[in-house]
Amino acid sequence: MVIDPKEMHFSKVHGYLLSAVVPRPIAFASTIDKDGNVNLSPFSFFNCFGANPPILVFSPARRGRDNTVKNTYENVLEVPEAVISMVNYNMVQQMSLASAEYPKGVNEFVKAGFTEVKSTLVKPPRVGESPASFECKVLQVIKTGEGGAAGNLVVCEVILMHIKDEVLGDDGKIDPFKLDAVSRMGGDWYCRAAGENLFKLPQPGNKIGIGMDNLPESIRNSKILTGNDLALLAGVEKIPDVAYLLINDQDRGALQLGEEVVHQRAQSYLKEGKVAEAWNLLLSQNKN
Amino acid sequence: MVIDPKEMHFSKVHGYLLSAVVPRPIAFASTIDKDGNVNLSPFSFFNCFGANPPILVFSPARRGRDNTVKNTYENVLEVPEAVISMVNYNMVQQMSLASAEYPKGVNEFVKAGFTEVKSTLVKPPRVGESPASFECKVLQVIKTGEGGAAGNLVVCEVILMHIKDEVLGDDGKIDPFKLDAVSRMGGDWYCRAAGENLFKLPQPGNKIGIGMDNLPESIRNSKILTGNDLALLAGVEKIPDVAYLLINDQDRGALQLGEEVVHQRAQSYLKEGKVAEAWNLLLSQNKN
Repeated sequence: MVIDPKEMHFSKVHGYLLSAVVPRPIAFASTIDKDGNVNLSPFSFFNCFGANPPILVFSPARRGRDNTVKNTYENVLEVPEAVISMVNYNMVQQMSLASAEYPKGVNEFVKAGFTEVKSTLVKPPRVGESPASFECKVLQVIKTGEGGAAGNLVVCEVILMHIKDEVLGDDGKIDPFKLDAVSRMGGDWYCRAAGENLFKLPQPGNKIGIGMDNLPESIRNSKILTGNDLALLAGVEKIPDVAYLLINDQDRGALQLGEEVVHQRAQSYLKEGKVAEAWNLLLSQNKN
Repeated sequence: MVIDPKEMHFSKVHGYLLSAVVPRPIAFASTIDKDGNVNLSPFSFFNCFGANPPILVFSPARRGRDNTVKNTYENVLEVPEAVISMVNYNMVQQMSLASAEYPKGVNEFVKAGFTEVKSTLVKPPRVGESPASFECKVLQVIKTGEGGAAGNLVVCEVILMHIKDEVLGDDGKIDPFKLDAVSRMGGDWYCRAAGENLFKLPQPGNKIGIGMDNLPESIRNSKILTGNDLALLAGVEKIPDVAYLLINDQDRGALQLGEEVVHQRAQSYLKEGKVAEAWNLLLSQNKN
């Protein structure tokens, strides 16, 4: 499907963007107006963009329905400060409650039952239940349009970070399982970043893989090995030397049964992260 | 834990931001330099920020290690265009391979084995394997600092969207289970947005809940009901009328056993999304 955004109503474009650019982290933003009234509202047009200085950006977009602006947008123009709190699974129903469009001046901390904790360096309070909160000054607000659903980039510099001890591991770093963060998908969907959906990939760092283009042809054109499998093989810095002597009985059996079985067994090795073993087997087969 | 970013080395601040602002969607950005050399690189400082016009922002930040800039950053200054492709689970190992720091001029499509598909409106190609790609013109590049790990906001307007039919549901919308998106967490961690980690929350829309502050005190101070439970109760537009006649035998039994059992049973109702049943039971208890 090809979509020209100029040929489709923005509300439908909005729907496709919301369901394609996922999962989105959630900024639970507290702000105040010039009279000191507190507002708390969740935004998923949000992310970190740099660390030095630490920059968070979120977008209280113009409403699609009637092209009005959100209280949060008005507030950061009146008082250029915000506290951005992260949302975990224990907070989702309360967060959803806070996202209702209460009239200006209503404090969503009260409505949603969150604890207002006084901030250290800014006037808006933070959410006591949140595992991590960022006190921010608003550097800039950039309008990207004037119509309904137009975004407004609220560029924030983090001036103080609060992280709950209970989400830290023994190494003093944030443990993603303890954090139990919640994120936004399209429609009514959310995603919990927890359990078996969390996985690790070794980061290449300074390591430069040989690349797919340098894989032997019989491997690159395998009918068994997937793109993910081939990428693991292509991530080595050089093609290893074959070590026939290290080969075990099961590998030897696979070699006798031919390429398809060898590739299946190599795939099993790769699933377990055993890249050297997979290479050794594949190269033994190539030399046969 | 409280962190003043000015008092901590930016590399550690970076680590805390990366592990707290999660999960982050991944922009697989293809760009070209003025000589037409193609680059493909993943960025998780990325999100959608508005729909009218459709705005995506990503940040090829300055390297923390040596304060150099990334090829992608140089490219968008030379040729202000990009294609942003989303990453699904089948692509992760290849994406990780593409994230290695190949020298300028090396085409990561080739190295990582992705298919270069010619774009319609911009010069950089898109990733053929990606479930959704956005052809973009770069509107603006905003530097947020000059030191290592400083962010650069690349503000993009989407001018053409490509979505694979295979990720669409029968209703023509993107099905999050079919999309199988992958996102970035801190350290080596990633999160797959799939399976049981996806859940729905009814969006309040125009509905304004009574709020936690209007819950009867015996409910608000429950030792059983959690914040999420209370938020579901507080999401109704008015406290319902009690309908004793509708109460079933199990509810009646719970009422005889007292508040704790009533709250436990109400909690079970709420877990199943049966808010009306929970209210009816709780109010019957209050009137006893």
